[in-house]
Amino acid sequence: MTTSFVPLTNDTFLRACRRQATDYTPLWLMRQAGRYLPEYKATRAQAGSFMGLATNVDFATEVTLQPLERFPLDAAILFSDILTVPDAMGLGLSFAEGEGPRFAKAIRDEAAVATLAVPDMDKLRYVFDAVTSIRRALNGRVPLIGFSGSPWTLACYMVEGKGSSDYRLVKSLMYSRPDLMHRILAVNADSVAQYLNAQIDAGAQAVMVFDSWGGVLADGAFQDFSLQYTQRVLAQLKRTGVDGQDVPRIVFTKGGGIWLEDMKDIDCEVLGLDWTANLGKARAIVGGSKALQGNLDPNVLFAPPEVVAAQARAVLDSFGKPHTDRNSTGPTHIFNLGHGISQFTPPEHVAALVETVHSYSRQLRRS
Amino acid sequence: MTTSFVPLTNDTFLRACRRQATDYTPLWLMRQAGRYLPEYKATRAQAGSFMGLATNVDFATEVTLQPLERFPLDAAILFSDILTVPDAMGLGLSFAEGEGPRFAKAIRDEAAVATLAVPDMDKLRYVFDAVTSIRRALNGRVPLIGFSGSPWTLACYMVEGKGSSDYRLVKSLMYSRPDLMHRILAVNADSVAQYLNAQIDAGAQAVMVFDSWGGVLADGAFQDFSLQYTQRVLAQLKRTGVDGQDVPRIVFTKGGGIWLEDMKDIDCEVLGLDWTANLGKARAIVGGSKALQGNLDPNVLFAPPEVVAAQARAVLDSFGKPHTDRNSTGPTHIFNLGHGISQFTPPEHVAALVETVHSYSRQLRRS
Repeated sequence: MTTSFVPLTNDTFLRACRRQATDYTPLWLMRQAGRYLPEYKATRAQAGSFMGLATNVDFATEVTLQPLERFPLDAAILFSDILTVPDAMGLGLSFAEGEGPRFAKAIRDEAAVATLAVPDMDKLRYVFDAVTSIRRALNGRVPLIGFSGSPWTLACYMVEGKGSSDYRLVKSLMYSRPDLMHRILAVNADSVAQYLNAQIDAGAQAVMVFDSWGGVLADGAFQDFSLQYTQRVLAQLKRTGVDGQDVPRIVFTKGGGIWLEDMKDIDCEVLGLDWTANLGKARAIVGGSKALQGNLDPNVLFAPPEVVAAQARAVLDSFGKPHTDRNSTGPTHIFNLGHGISQFTPPEHVAALVETVHSYSRQLRRS
Repeated sequence: MTTSFVPLTNDTFLRACRRQATDYTPLWLMRQAGRYLPEYKATRAQAGSFMGLATNVDFATEVTLQPLERFPLDAAILFSDILTVPDAMGLGLSFAEGEGPRFAKAIRDEAAVATLAVPDMDKLRYVFDAVTSIRRALNGRVPLIGFSGSPWTLACYMVEGKGSSDYRLVKSLMYSRPDLMHRILAVNADSVAQYLNAQIDAGAQAVMVFDSWGGVLADGAFQDFSLQYTQRVLAQLKRTGVDGQDVPRIVFTKGGGIWLEDMKDIDCEVLGLDWTANLGKARAIVGGSKALQGNLDPNVLFAPPEVVAAQARAVLDSFGKPHTDRNSTGPTHIFNLGHGISQFTPPEHVAALVETVHSYSRQLRRS
C-alpha cells in the first residue's frame, strides 16, 4: 500500500508521545466528537443511527473533524465504536435508542467459544476507509489516532451481550472456565492487533487501546486476563506508519491507577490515567519510561469556566513541569479527560479548558 | 443507659480488629443477610417491602441472624440501609420494586441545603431498637457490627435523588459550589457520628463507615470531600461500648485502594479493601497500624466450590501469615468480600468459602 499524505503542521501531540520536549502540553479529549456538539447531533440525525454514522466514510470523516473546527485540539481520533471487532466476528452489534450497545449473539459456553475466530478484516473495511478519508481531510493539521477496545473489554461485551453493572456473566465464565476465557482473549488480542495494524496502514499516526473495563477485575485477574492480552496486542503492532514515521501506542485502563507498577514496563509509549490517579505520583512510579495522558474528571466541565480553568491548572500542576530539553527525551504529559466527555457538556466550557491548558502549560515551562 | 448483655463466646473478629493474634482468620460478608438466602426472601415477603423489613425490630432481628444459622460466620451486621439518616432528615426514602433507593426530595441548591440539619435521633429509634434486639438475640455468639453510609456517599444520594452512573449532579454541585457541598458534608458527618454513637449505646460492638462512592471522586477531591468528613465522623465516635469494651471502627472506601497512603493514618482500627487491591502490598503500605478487611471478588462465588476455595486461599496467601504472638499486637486480617454479596449467589458456595477460610487460615498460622 502506498499512500502519501501531507506533512504535519502541528506535531505537538506526537512529540509528547515520544517524550520529546514541546512548547506547551498538547490536549485532546476522549469522545471529543460526540453528542455534546449540536453539529454532531445534526449529522447523526442525517445518518439515522449510530452505526449508520460509523459505517459511512463521509459521515465518520465529518464528525471526526467537527470538534477541531471549534477548538484548537492537538489530535483527532477516528470516529468509531470499540465494538466493531466482535461485530465483524458475527455477533450482530446494534444500538437501541437511549440504550447502550447490544449483541444479538452472546458468547457464554464452549460451543460458542469454539466458533470464534479472527474476523476477515475486509468486514472492517469501512473503518480503514474512514481512517484514510479522515487523514486526508485533516490535511496535516493534527495527527490522527486510531483505536480499539482491549481484548478484555471486548470480552466483557461479548459474554454479557451488553453493558453490565456487575460483570457477573463474564466473571463467572472467567472464574469457572478460565480455559474458555483465555481462548476468547487470545482470539480478541490477535483480532485487535490485525485491526490496529490495518488502521496504521490506512494512515493512523498513533493507536490507542481502550481497556475501559480492566478496572473491574480483581488484583491478579487484571494481570492475567486483561494486561497480558493487551501486551499480546502491543507485541504484534507495526511500529512504523505509511509515512515512515513511528506510531506511538497508548494504553488506557480505566481504574488502572492501582496497577501502575504492573503497567509501567509494558511495551507502549503512553499510559492513560483516569481522574483517581495523581499525575505526580504516577510520574514518580513510571519514571521517564512513558508519557502520561490524562486526567481531568469530565464532570469538572459542568462547572463555570473559571472553575474549569482552575481544575485544569491543578491537573497540569500535579504532573509538574515537563522536561524542556530539545536534545533528549524525558517526562511528558498529554492533557485529556479521565474518561469520555459527557453528552451534557456545554461546548463553551470545552473552549475554556483548551485555552487554559495551552496558555498555562506554556507558562509552566517558563517557571 | 444501662444495658447488660451476655459475654461473647466468639471474640475472634474483635480480637482481629484490635490487631491481636487469633487462631484463625475471622470472616463475615458484606450484605450477608440478603436476597441470596431463601429464608430472607420469605421474611421480606411477610414484611411487604424493604423498609417494612428494616423498620420492624422483629423482622430486622430475624434476618440479621439468618446467615449465622447457616454458616459459622464470625460477626453479625445490623440489617438496615445506608440511607436511613437522610430519610430521617426528611428526604423521603423509598424503594421501588426492582429499582434502587430513591428520595422524594433532592438537595440541589442553596435553599435546599439551608434546610438541612442533624435529624432528631428519635426518628431513627427503630434502628437503635433493632441493634439492642439483635444483640440480645445473638446471645454472645458473635459480635454485632453497626454501620452507616459515609458523609460523601449519603451526599451522592441526597443530591442525585437516586443511584447514578456518572454522579453528574453531585459532582456539578461539588465543583460549582464547594461551599454548599462542604455544608452538606458537615451536617452529614455530625449526623452520622450521632447515629453511630447511638448504635454503640444500643449495643453495637464495632462500627463501620461505608464509603461506597468515595472511589468515584478525583484525586484531591476524594481527600477534601470524602476522607476529611469520614475523619470528622471518626473523631466524634465513642470509644467504649455499653459493656465497657472498646468499639473498633472500620472504614471501607470502594475503589479506595489507590489512596491507601492517605488513609493509613486516619483514626480507625480497620481498613476495608475491595478486590482491586493486593492485600500484601496494602499490608506493606499500612504497616502494623491497622487491621485489613477484605477482599474476595463477590463474583468468585458463582464459580464451583473448588474454585471458590482456591480463590479464598489466594486472598489469604496474598495477605500472608498474620502475626501469632499472643502478647503483642501486629498485622491482622479479617476476611470479607470486596463488596456486598450478590443476590444470585448459591448459598452452598458460601458454605465452601467459610469452611476454606477457617481451615486454611489455621493451616497458614502453622506454616
